[in-house]
Amino acid sequence: MSEAVDYKYVGSRPIRPDGVDKVTGRANFGADENLSGMLYGKVVRSEHSHARILSIDTSKAEAMPGVLSVITVKDFPDRSGFNAGLRAFSDNVIALDKVLYHGQAIAAVAATSSYLAEQAVKAVKVEYEVLPVVTDILKAMDESAPLLHEQMYTDGLDEKPEKPSNVSKRMVIAKGNVDEGFAAADEVIERKYTTAMVHQGYIEPHACTANYNESGQATLWVSSQGHFDIRNMTSRTLGMDMGDLRVIPAEIGGGFGGKTTVYLEPLALKLSEKSGRPVKMVMSREEVFRATGPAPGTVNTVKIGCKKDGTITAMSAKLIYESGAYPASPLGPGCMCVFAPYDVENIHIEGFEVVVNKPRVAAYRAPGAPQSVYAAESVLDELAEILDIDPLDFRIKNAATKGTQSAYGPKFQEIGFQECLEAAKNHPNYQTSLKANQGRGVAAGFWFNAGNMSTAEVHIADSGMVKIVEGSPDIGGSRAGMALMAAETLGVPYEQIRVLVADTDSTGYSSTTGGSRTTFATGLAVIQACEQVILELRGRAAKTWGVDLDQVEWSEGTAIPVAGLNIEAEPMNLKQLAKVAARTGGPISGIATLNAQGAGPAFSVNLTDVEVDRETGKVDVLSFTAIQDAGKAIHPSYVEGQLQGGAVQGIGWALNEEFVFDEQGKLDNPGFLDYRIPVASDLPMIDTHIVEVPNPNHPFGVRGCGETPIVAPLAAVGNAVNRALGTRIRELPLSPSRILESIE
Amino acid sequence: MSEAVDYKYVGSRPIRPDGVDKVTGRANFGADENLSGMLYGKVVRSEHSHARILSIDTSKAEAMPGVLSVITVKDFPDRSGFNAGLRAFSDNVIALDKVLYHGQAIAAVAATSSYLAEQAVKAVKVEYEVLPVVTDILKAMDESAPLLHEQMYTDGLDEKPEKPSNVSKRMVIAKGNVDEGFAAADEVIERKYTTAMVHQGYIEPHACTANYNESGQATLWVSSQGHFDIRNMTSRTLGMDMGDLRVIPAEIGGGFGGKTTVYLEPLALKLSEKSGRPVKMVMSREEVFRATGPAPGTVNTVKIGCKKDGTITAMSAKLIYESGAYPASPLGPGCMCVFAPYDVENIHIEGFEVVVNKPRVAAYRAPGAPQSVYAAESVLDELAEILDIDPLDFRIKNAATKGTQSAYGPKFQEIGFQECLEAAKNHPNYQTSLKANQGRGVAAGFWFNAGNMSTAEVHIADSGMVKIVEGSPDIGGSRAGMALMAAETLGVPYEQIRVLVADTDSTGYSSTTGGSRTTFATGLAVIQACEQVILELRGRAAKTWGVDLDQVEWSEGTAIPVAGLNIEAEPMNLKQLAKVAARTGGPISGIATLNAQGAGPAFSVNLTDVEVDRETGKVDVLSFTAIQDAGKAIHPSYVEGQLQGGAVQGIGWALNEEFVFDEQGKLDNPGFLDYRIPVASDLPMIDTHIVEVPNPNHPFGVRGCGETPIVAPLAAVGNAVNRALGTRIRELPLSPSRILESIE
Repeated sequence: MSEAVDYKYVGSRPIRPDGVDKVTGRANFGADENLSGMLYGKVVRSEHSHARILSIDTSKAEAMPGVLSVITVKDFPDRSGFNAGLRAFSDNVIALDKVLYHGQAIAAVAATSSYLAEQAVKAVKVEYEVLPVVTDILKAMDESAPLLHEQMYTDGLDEKPEKPSNVSKRMVIAKGNVDEGFAAADEVIERKYTTAMVHQGYIEPHACTANYNESGQATLWVSSQGHFDIRNMTSRTLGMDMGDLRVIPAEIGGGFGGKTTVYLEPLALKLSEKSGRPVKMVMSREEVFRATGPAPGTVNTVKIGCKKDGTITAMSAKLIYESGAYPASPLGPGCMCVFAPYDVENIHIEGFEVVVNKPRVAAYRAPGAPQSVYAAESVLDELAEILDIDPLDFRIKNAATKGTQSAYGPKFQEIGFQECLEAAKNHPNYQTSLKANQGRGVAAGFWFNAGNMSTAEVHIADSGMVKIVEGSPDIGGSRAGMALMAAETLGVPYEQIRVLVADTDSTGYSSTTGGSRTTFATGLAVIQACEQVILELRGRAAKTWGVDLDQVEWSEGTAIPVAGLNIEAEPMNLKQLAKVAARTGGPISGIATLNAQGAGPAFSVNLTDVEVDRETGKVDVLSFTAIQDAGKAIHPSYVEGQLQGGAVQGIGWALNEEFVFDEQGKLDNPGFLDYRIPVASDLPMIDTHIVEVPNPNHPFGVRGCGETPIVAPLAAVGNAVNRALGTRIRELPLSPSRILESIE
Repeated sequence: MSEAVDYKYVGSRPIRPDGVDKVTGRANFGADENLSGMLYGKVVRSEHSHARILSIDTSKAEAMPGVLSVITVKDFPDRSGFNAGLRAFSDNVIALDKVLYHGQAIAAVAATSSYLAEQAVKAVKVEYEVLPVVTDILKAMDESAPLLHEQMYTDGLDEKPEKPSNVSKRMVIAKGNVDEGFAAADEVIERKYTTAMVHQGYIEPHACTANYNESGQATLWVSSQGHFDIRNMTSRTLGMDMGDLRVIPAEIGGGFGGKTTVYLEPLALKLSEKSGRPVKMVMSREEVFRATGPAPGTVNTVKIGCKKDGTITAMSAKLIYESGAYPASPLGPGCMCVFAPYDVENIHIEGFEVVVNKPRVAAYRAPGAPQSVYAAESVLDELAEILDIDPLDFRIKNAATKGTQSAYGPKFQEIGFQECLEAAKNHPNYQTSLKANQGRGVAAGFWFNAGNMSTAEVHIADSGMVKIVEGSPDIGGSRAGMALMAAETLGVPYEQIRVLVADTDSTGYSSTTGGSRTTFATGLAVIQACEQVILELRGRAAKTWGVDLDQVEWSEGTAIPVAGLNIEAEPMNLKQLAKVAARTGGPISGIATLNAQGAGPAFSVNLTDVEVDRETGKVDVLSFTAIQDAGKAIHPSYVEGQLQGGAVQGIGWALNEEFVFDEQGKLDNPGFLDYRIPVASDLPMIDTHIVEVPNPNHPFGVRGCGETPIVAPLAAVGNAVNRALGTRIRELPLSPSRILESIE
């Protein structure tokens, strides 16, 4: 295992560059762009969860004074030539002939005020043929269930299916032979764990402003996790060349995976095109709940067999993920992650994706992993209880290490799971004693982390200020992280660096921020662009001194003659070299583009103590400890923030959060009063501990760290509650009513 | 002489990319940025042309409801450490202790409305000690004249002066021996020609919006000819690091040199800093006239001697340029250009810059050249009349050619002056006959053209759309020009290219657009960035085909195997290569930075016929023909537009435009009603003829073309009027009153 290195800037905790503008209200979020003559757009949404659209009468709305455009699917490109994916994607933006969930977009209006637009929405008359509804995944899998898509056949079956089905996909990941594994076990248990559909709960609703001109070129201001992909998705749905759409990123008020796709953007552009005016659209909170992408509910059955000494001989899982109205679930990562932390010979994972009359799901932090890992880590806890061994020791015994062949693909390089488990075992919070009705839960988490494409530019201003350009939005501190990596690479102080998140026309493509890719991949691009600039700076010094490039080296932010060559030259630092840029060749800039390979998987261990109030069923979280291998924490405060944020969201998922649908598929709790996310007073301080086992594929050892923190909390809290209760509830959320029911 | 080449895209006339947004009103100009909570700033201006500021009482203004900040020079950095240039520059932004012209900024206010801000301006009380005023340059040179700057000593004299003076600078350019030259001449005449102070007359007043945050970082939206230099000038005056100021370029509604400096920007930022709010400032037309930078009036004496056959033996000039209140005149280019078109052995040019109580001058198209060339070309016309030879033949006889050693420095490479003169001689407009009271004027023009620093980026979108990023504002068609050069270099259609003018934080430095540098220098950067992308594209094809880079060549937008190597591979065009970018290494981008050398001088010849109404003194321009060597016209319509625009501005300068000051130095005509620029009904169609003698230092042969068109019209019109009158008026403008006076 390579050792973590001490750096000068990397690993320090400077103030965040975006902080002042965010606390003073100066920062522009999705709804903050205002243009002359701008209209306000609103969406006409389905009143039914499953229905055929018979007619849409927009005449009344169109006749209203101040209403400048009304659009329906007829204003959009014909979808008959679209592939299935683009077709489904587009239907979710605006329904073609059928609505598949309550709140789905059917039409949109733009008017001179928000109020007028709302009135116009009410004036649009839609005639429906109402169809039977199915919202339960198990029921939806039944042959007799109402079909959402009449032409959808299950993908990934051994034999080509004869009939269409709501099961959109089956996938299998396997290694070894689980039958033999289970036969060799002393203990085998199989349990079914279910989770509810939940929302990311970002504070900022979806919002954008669109301006489409008469030559078919357009500008879109929008808050997202990746404005390049917003550009690409929006333009494809609209049949535009992506090069005709410039997307200008706003600050993002929370995304967590939910802002990786488009809802309003194509509507706003189309309304702008039709009206000839800029159009702003902002969702209400209710719209966010009803019509954006939550995380899927799941029904996961996990079977684990082990020897008496705790050695696991086989693990198998049957994972069923709902996908909402269209195939879009994170079943793949769910299957990849479920058993990834363990070095087990025989593994079999079978997954199913099922469509139901609910909103199309979207990514939510470590998409798919919390649900499956909840099942796996809960069953491990049950086994540890049965075997009567410490749950951490049980995991230590079976933990993946360098060289472990994962079931999902790679053979692990340097990983920090053992280190996390040891850190947990030694953590003071694991040593305290528990009182009555209290329980301690343990769980591990895993995320493989992503690479993908990034572009970074570095430009040196005359004053020597270093300007970094990235195409990755600042969601979890990318400005600070990039500045620290640039500072370390160039050898100049953090304070001498400014970072801009540039729009789609100002810089090269960068993939959406997701999968914990940005500090790794965009960081790599920044480092490479800085290395180019160092080469250029050495050249400028060489030119100034009249020597060869290879006679100049770069050390601590300064060009110096290579030792031993007897070159008489005053070292020149970056500021001095910036001053002579004009006469040594012009402005100094560098650019790097890459499709990053070698993201390092990140493992976590969570510990939590809870207390159950047996009278009310309420669970208090007494302590929560998030331990995770960050590879190298570029800005440790941000990493701790990721660990804390993931823990809090996971606690909410475990204890309270769930979409409650009525029998007609209408969401009963579309707001933060009825959909209860944890608030500060619900929570203890989330203790964090960063493990640093460097990723060998990154100069500073970075692993992604944003996804993993949400993977283990569901199981950790579940295990704690179940141990406090002395009985197992295998369904989330562990809400007071459910707990009371179990006690009764 | 190299031959002009025929290109596929270069030289064509596609529609302008910025056209639609400009005609529909979508384009954002300087005043179009609106931010939440934005205030409106206004300037308190001096009521005197020369005065010491005794006190400024802002208390009343500060107490007014809705007034959120009031600033004076006390809010700005101490200037005692500034060098003379920065000191003068800063004093022009906001006066320190003395005002030197009527309308100079003394204080500024920001309020919640424009109206409130105007009231607050009136509430600021300034006490002055009024000083004697001098506005006439010749009087200002007198030892007894009131001194504007008590510590200013003439620079460039043979001996160090003992006393301070209003003459800020003397310069000499010479070659050969003019005494000998004049002695060898058969005819020698010396004449004094004067020109008035004139304004560029851009339609869009100066405007900006500033947003300064609590951590000292700021954003400025502004219309200018170079947002990077606006950033640099503004930050220096404010004592900021330029890296803390992001300048976002607006579209520019005319600049012509006048938008290369700052007036409102530092005030707006300071008001924003002090109020904690964004601040917008927009000048009124009156403020533009009173307090921005016009072109200097001049008094120029030219002496030319020649042989009977027309061979010029010597040329000398004494050029006196007013500079307004601070040294800032274009005396240098005036001296460089005055005799540059001619291959004459003996040349002596002496120039003086003089400060007067008028606004500090700024650049105006070919800064300094129209005034001095007016004198030189008028004296040449007088000589031609005396010698009774055709004025074009006279010039042809003495014209500079390749190899001519200019007085101001370079030995000319390929130039097109002879070609322009021949084109004029052969032009149908030179063959028509004239009637009574009509006259035909001929004059030549010259501008050396500039290079300077540029950065350009090229990014390939997935769709194959080519995105060009430039840091040069689109003043005269840079988007179209860059797209055409990129199309030609890459071998892809113009329609597949989009060009963005990026802000100061999104790309590397580019010098201000001026001196006709942009098509040449930024064009070179675009070409080099495209060449980098071609190298990258060849690499991607090589990777796809499994061959070496040098086995792939780029031809007509397509990667093809090098012929004769027997490589079996399907050619891949840019769109196909863009599609495989992810799997061949990531996004495809290129960047180039340079400090361009080798700008090619541009010569022109203007012909014009005028008719003088002897009753009213009004001059009608009957025809005007602008002939110029563009090297290679990248987009000929834009080049023609430059020729036409320069001609129209020159006609205005010759016939009507002048700043009229009263005895106290107050401008009497600060508006377009009293300051008369030509309108369409005043003008004939301006005929153009583009000569193309390629500049050997540019791949497509580009010379700058924006400056030269305004150089010759003053003399061409003057010569035409004088020939129509049969007498010489040697003072511009040739206004009806002045012509009537001459007739009487």
